[in-house]
Amino acid sequence: MLNFDFYNPTRVIFGQGRIADLNKRVPKDARVLVLYGGGSVKTTGTLNEVLANLGGRVVVEFGGIEPNPTYETMMRAVEVAKRENIDFLLAVGGGSVIDGTKFVAAAVNYDGDCKDILTSRGMKIKSTLPIGVVLTLSATGSEMNNGGVITQLSSHTKSAFFHERLFPVFAILDPTKTYTLAPRQIANGVVDAFVHTIEQYLTYPVGGMVQDRFAEGLLLTLIEIGPKALANPEDYQLRANLMWVATMALNGLIGAGVPQDWATHMIGHELTALYNIDHARTLAIVLPSMLTVRKEAKREKLLQYATRVWHINEGTDDERIDQAITATRQFFASVGVETSLSGHGVGIEAIDAVLAQLQAHKMVALGERRDVTLEMSKDILTCCL
Amino acid sequence: MLNFDFYNPTRVIFGQGRIADLNKRVPKDARVLVLYGGGSVKTTGTLNEVLANLGGRVVVEFGGIEPNPTYETMMRAVEVAKRENIDFLLAVGGGSVIDGTKFVAAAVNYDGDCKDILTSRGMKIKSTLPIGVVLTLSATGSEMNNGGVITQLSSHTKSAFFHERLFPVFAILDPTKTYTLAPRQIANGVVDAFVHTIEQYLTYPVGGMVQDRFAEGLLLTLIEIGPKALANPEDYQLRANLMWVATMALNGLIGAGVPQDWATHMIGHELTALYNIDHARTLAIVLPSMLTVRKEAKREKLLQYATRVWHINEGTDDERIDQAITATRQFFASVGVETSLSGHGVGIEAIDAVLAQLQAHKMVALGERRDVTLEMSKDILTCCL
Repeated sequence: MLNFDFYNPTRVIFGQGRIADLNKRVPKDARVLVLYGGGSVKTTGTLNEVLANLGGRVVVEFGGIEPNPTYETMMRAVEVAKRENIDFLLAVGGGSVIDGTKFVAAAVNYDGDCKDILTSRGMKIKSTLPIGVVLTLSATGSEMNNGGVITQLSSHTKSAFFHERLFPVFAILDPTKTYTLAPRQIANGVVDAFVHTIEQYLTYPVGGMVQDRFAEGLLLTLIEIGPKALANPEDYQLRANLMWVATMALNGLIGAGVPQDWATHMIGHELTALYNIDHARTLAIVLPSMLTVRKEAKREKLLQYATRVWHINEGTDDERIDQAITATRQFFASVGVETSLSGHGVGIEAIDAVLAQLQAHKMVALGERRDVTLEMSKDILTCCL
Repeated sequence: MLNFDFYNPTRVIFGQGRIADLNKRVPKDARVLVLYGGGSVKTTGTLNEVLANLGGRVVVEFGGIEPNPTYETMMRAVEVAKRENIDFLLAVGGGSVIDGTKFVAAAVNYDGDCKDILTSRGMKIKSTLPIGVVLTLSATGSEMNNGGVITQLSSHTKSAFFHERLFPVFAILDPTKTYTLAPRQIANGVVDAFVHTIEQYLTYPVGGMVQDRFAEGLLLTLIEIGPKALANPEDYQLRANLMWVATMALNGLIGAGVPQDWATHMIGHELTALYNIDHARTLAIVLPSMLTVRKEAKREKLLQYATRVWHINEGTDDERIDQAITATRQFFASVGVETSLSGHGVGIEAIDAVLAQLQAHKMVALGERRDVTLEMSKDILTCCL
């Protein structure tokens, strides 16, 4: 096991009806900016429920945060927060709204060009506003971690940033709030949580037995509930487990003390920025090819994955690895997610375009051993066609 | 899944050499009370290592905290802390030292009779001192939770108390610090972590799939490493995994959103208070009998336990349950821990003695359904003989 620090002070408030806890958790004298996305929180009534539980506080709304939230949009929120002397941010939505809110939290009091927050990966953040979350979509885990991803439209750049002060103070996770989501969003959440787990699990063995068991537990649960959660929108237990899996997949726990990969994410980010393919769907495209190309480097963990997650015990080692990769691809297909670029109408031209972006963003040594060169990324992208 | 709150702000600092982080984590101007047990931290050099990393701070020592720390001893520490104007407590040891330190943290500024802290189960705590931990023994999980257990010698009473402010600010977990422990202490840690997990897992199903997988992961890891960790004192990976399992077994995570039992602990506490049997050993005595007597109430989870933890797939349901209970008993035996009262020289007289104490402590409706009456406790104790 590698040495590690683990710290996660976010209070999770989980279950049906828990939005009522807002009144207890948001300071009574706060000036609150409520941030949300495209407006579904209005049609579902969630926004009204939130506002009803903020009674007595000064509340300002900022809607219209897009999927893959942009620097351009979030800087408008920063201006609103400054103008209204906001001292508490409440994100009502999924990962995009929460990520955008984290950027606002870091940018409001930032002294300098706020793009520095992104180029420094958060290193330059000095002070933040407190953040609360009402989660309406299970996927990114942003509700219980300290990171976010922001897209700069001008340069087609997705940048991740992190800071210890960006953990939400609390996150309300009410599974019933996901009942009204489109199947596409649920499927994306399943894939996103699955690949988050894989990025921290399918590397090389370091003896992290607890971390491996926990990661396998999340994967087994996703395999068991993914298609069912899609087919049964109002099954509380399925949606509750999906919500808790997605949070646990990226709250730092399963990645503590083990190597982490994230090459699939880095290539996926470029596909989203260039072709506007949903984040999760880029991961479903890249991951199977990533595993195929990097089979040797990941051999031991791939065999463990085959045995413990897919119960594949027959055949040679190579056959078992291939079967596990095929099973992964089929799992994504089982929730209706394409695993090839062509399935999204993207052709061979993507290879050079993505490679150019990877180079521009200095993503030339990716993965847990930093051995995913541009050349290897080319092989992976070719395999994605 | 049941509704739940999960909150755990303790910073875990894990790995060989991490005691050096003390200098970063303890405030430079702190007046520190360093608390420890019987003195092994002196002979091993750990205390000196701790002191060396507290350079520049006012440091006062309080040693001699006994296993099952007593109110009487800890009130002496409270007097020292008051006299020396202590504002930071550093526990260097295992669960007993940490539990005792938590009591001091709650008692130093307590306005009233400090026994109230125990009789109110912590409800009356208003302010606390910050606590840091240097862990030298993996077992109780106290390093990353908000509870403690204190024994009042005068009345043979073990009382648990909890408060949100009692989470340690940080806990340094260096597995090499467990190399010098006696085999008895390692065995106790294995059993303690195992039973902590069981108390939160072997109840009745509520659809907590993630919690079940995580609990099973901890049990599988303990079964894999328990006897080996005992036999190989200086195997870093074994000791590291044992340390992380024990912490994860009682930091609130696997118990969030699922029923919890704790009847084994309540009966075990009486055995320790009356006969001075090590805490973990009382659990090993009580648990198999507890499962046998409450087989019907726990049937579904016992079958899941048989399948997923012990891979027992042959036989009738009743046979599989019996085999799983036998396997549990054998596992405790495999780390040299007795599973009967007679193995500790305690006879039939214990039954009435323990029942009288349970009644005195109002422990008359235990377990996840509060259906473990005194009559059922009598059956369980009879089965323990």
